[in-house]
Amino acid sequence: MDNKEIYPVFDKMLSRSDKEELLGQKAVMIWFTGLSGSGKSTLSIALERELFARGYICRLLDGDNIRSGINKNLTFSPADRIENIRRIAEVSKLFVESGIVTMGAFISPTNDVRDLAKSIIGEENFIEVYVSTPISVCEDRDIKGLYKKAHSGELKEFTGVSSPFDEPMNPDISLDTSKREVAESVELLLQLVIPRIEKKR
Amino acid sequence: MDNKEIYPVFDKMLSRSDKEELLGQKAVMIWFTGLSGSGKSTLSIALERELFARGYICRLLDGDNIRSGINKNLTFSPADRIENIRRIAEVSKLFVESGIVTMGAFISPTNDVRDLAKSIIGEENFIEVYVSTPISVCEDRDIKGLYKKAHSGELKEFTGVSSPFDEPMNPDISLDTSKREVAESVELLLQLVIPRIEKKR
Repeated sequence: MDNKEIYPVFDKMLSRSDKEELLGQKAVMIWFTGLSGSGKSTLSIALERELFARGYICRLLDGDNIRSGINKNLTFSPADRIENIRRIAEVSKLFVESGIVTMGAFISPTNDVRDLAKSIIGEENFIEVYVSTPISVCEDRDIKGLYKKAHSGELKEFTGVSSPFDEPMNPDISLDTSKREVAESVELLLQLVIPRIEKKR
Repeated sequence: MDNKEIYPVFDKMLSRSDKEELLGQKAVMIWFTGLSGSGKSTLSIALERELFARGYICRLLDGDNIRSGINKNLTFSPADRIENIRRIAEVSKLFVESGIVTMGAFISPTNDVRDLAKSIIGEENFIEVYVSTPISVCEDRDIKGLYKKAHSGELKEFTGVSSPFDEPMNPDISLDTSKREVAESVELLLQLVIPRIEKKR
């Protein structure tokens, strides 16, 4: 076997733009950040459905599919929280390089971890969505009962209660789900995202 | 915001079959195993090109995009070699669940690590391709100069020289690239893979 002779041009892996061409879309990373209970999952799931209905293929990464798989061997120690975001970003990069519209819904509480994600995925690929629902509303919702546990001390270092959340300094969009209906927020997201992913033919 | 009321059916993430429908293909994992220099990368790259030409969207994972990214913080210690394969398998699972035809080209030298990958990705999704080129041919090629380093002792625990390679017990196909041209091997792979990924309309 002599690859060089048999596959003179074809011995390189297909590129992202080859795949974007096949899929008829441009890839991007949509990174949802915000407190627990702010509405990141709800908005990202709804956005994926709307994009899917328009023919866009997406991959949504969230705690459910990441913490149970690639990151199942990580704790919530400071070092592991950084490693958690690093791996999420590296996985996201692989999806973006495949031409896929990729979304992540993770608290990602500090400018440092969001900058880490952005630097791995590439700033030019990165759309930052700040789900800015006030903590009082998130605590009232307390869908998973986590705020209650954080206040009782059962959960240590819980973002917003016993661990800081840095507001993003320059998000592409901020959405407060206590002030807007899901459908309205998703409409704003579509207006932001579609120009970045649609492929002129 | 009350998700339950606003999105009564739409608050669940899209499924693999939704995505397979959109992409017009069925997802599968094609796992290439074999010695360094056996031709795993060459065959997988060529297979991806042929599938792409037929309209299938694929993701090829290999040492270049994995060791420089998600697995850059792993060494070649026994524990890290297992973690290397575990992470590759978890990433592959995320791609397969997105409806993507996923390929991995990794030495993956033991039945244990291949079984680990298979158990994570799911046996029903797993096509095992054994690139069975004899070690004498791989050593003669020595494209990366690794066998020379392994024999001089510069590289420790090198598969096939100072570390074992278990032949797969029941691969879906075995291909010896010293006996077949790339094009012929790829043709056999297409005959194996296409019935698994084509979507009847």
